[in-house]
Amino acid sequence: MSLTRTPLVGVLGGMGPLATVDFLHKLILATPAGRDQEHVPTVVWNVPQIPDRQHYLAGHGDSPLPAMLEGIERLNEAGATRIVIPCNTAHHWFDELAAASTAPLIHIVDATLDALERDAASECVGIIATRGTLQSGLYQQRLAARGISYVLPDEPALDRWFTPGCYAVKRNALPLAGNLLEQVAEALVGQGATRLILACTEVPVALAAINSPLQAVSIDPAVALAKAVLAYWNHAQAAGAVQPTALAAP
Amino acid sequence: MSLTRTPLVGVLGGMGPLATVDFLHKLILATPAGRDQEHVPTVVWNVPQIPDRQHYLAGHGDSPLPAMLEGIERLNEAGATRIVIPCNTAHHWFDELAAASTAPLIHIVDATLDALERDAASECVGIIATRGTLQSGLYQQRLAARGISYVLPDEPALDRWFTPGCYAVKRNALPLAGNLLEQVAEALVGQGATRLILACTEVPVALAAINSPLQAVSIDPAVALAKAVLAYWNHAQAAGAVQPTALAAP
Repeated sequence: MSLTRTPLVGVLGGMGPLATVDFLHKLILATPAGRDQEHVPTVVWNVPQIPDRQHYLAGHGDSPLPAMLEGIERLNEAGATRIVIPCNTAHHWFDELAAASTAPLIHIVDATLDALERDAASECVGIIATRGTLQSGLYQQRLAARGISYVLPDEPALDRWFTPGCYAVKRNALPLAGNLLEQVAEALVGQGATRLILACTEVPVALAAINSPLQAVSIDPAVALAKAVLAYWNHAQAAGAVQPTALAAP
Repeated sequence: MSLTRTPLVGVLGGMGPLATVDFLHKLILATPAGRDQEHVPTVVWNVPQIPDRQHYLAGHGDSPLPAMLEGIERLNEAGATRIVIPCNTAHHWFDELAAASTAPLIHIVDATLDALERDAASECVGIIATRGTLQSGLYQQRLAARGISYVLPDEPALDRWFTPGCYAVKRNALPLAGNLLEQVAEALVGQGATRLILACTEVPVALAAINSPLQAVSIDPAVALAKAVLAYWNHAQAAGAVQPTALAAP
């Protein structure tokens, strides 16, 4: 991989398809572009025929890893120079995916905690996520490492509101999903949370659909990931500006 | 190309990036899926660093064709079995792109006129499109061939409302864009149009943003293209059902 390679952001999508589109939309909204050509170039592997991540982590069905590895391979073949995955649960397999990829991967949790720190929050963070994401400890470990306290949804909240809310997004029943997932958010606020991380990419879509006031204290990892992508793109552009001849090469 | 190839829809996007996301969203909304795995698998080449199509057709700047051909090549390499382009103006180069592609391309105008005929319209159709699309005669020729009458925006409408409205979408100024583009639509209704084809992928985004009542008589080529993609996917699935062993092969 040479320094002169054209920057291209690979998106390993399909988990789910709507969350992928939501991420792409947020990337466009975060980009201060005045014309098409100023937007971040992306190649998107949006193939949702991947075994269910939550089912597998709960002990049922096939591993989604082989299908995800195929996506990583295709994105590298297509020329991706960075890869992102707009799905929190999929980050359970981040290390295996990163090891198989020539293009470096940007981790959604690192991007999210960078956004939290920029907001100067030394508050109590509530994490809304799938059981798989919560059990993997992805967010908790990184929050603890930065000395930030957190609270998690309890089992009844996951069963009664989170899981049905998540699947309601997947079948486009957004108002129902919003009402269910807002109850998870309210329960965390009741447990002391002053900030919320919407750590399942289906949740922000649902809360936006019902215009929930809790959006004001929420961090959307998809937005944080979009900002990290934009920072990479801006850096790559700036690097190009100091070596225009090399970058102009085919 | 064997009959057992896994169906995968390639999307040549980036013209513009928001129109690409809008098309992907409409494809998801058009799909009667109950879970992720039932959605249409897509690979999206969303690289907007393509010379401006409208400028080139007006006699300025570089041809966008080489950049579009690169996208077609990458989508074929990624395994696409059908390719669509959610941009009307880009269909000026449809024949060259189709000739360079192993995967067949679905034409957005054919998809749109199929939708019009399904709606049993023997009415007068107003076409809202870029100068490039209008001058290419893409819609007019196909409408005439089916014996359907049409009206077009006049030069002042294109200069005063259409072109600034289109570029307003590209910089995300959606309410302004909606107000400008609705005036083009109202002028066509004044000229006798009883149906409208929103033949520039930026227009439906803008009219939706202001919730224009003219949406009720409009056909959105992006929705028509999504339905054509879904018809292909359903057909490929049904074909798979009669030869499950072959399709199960890697």
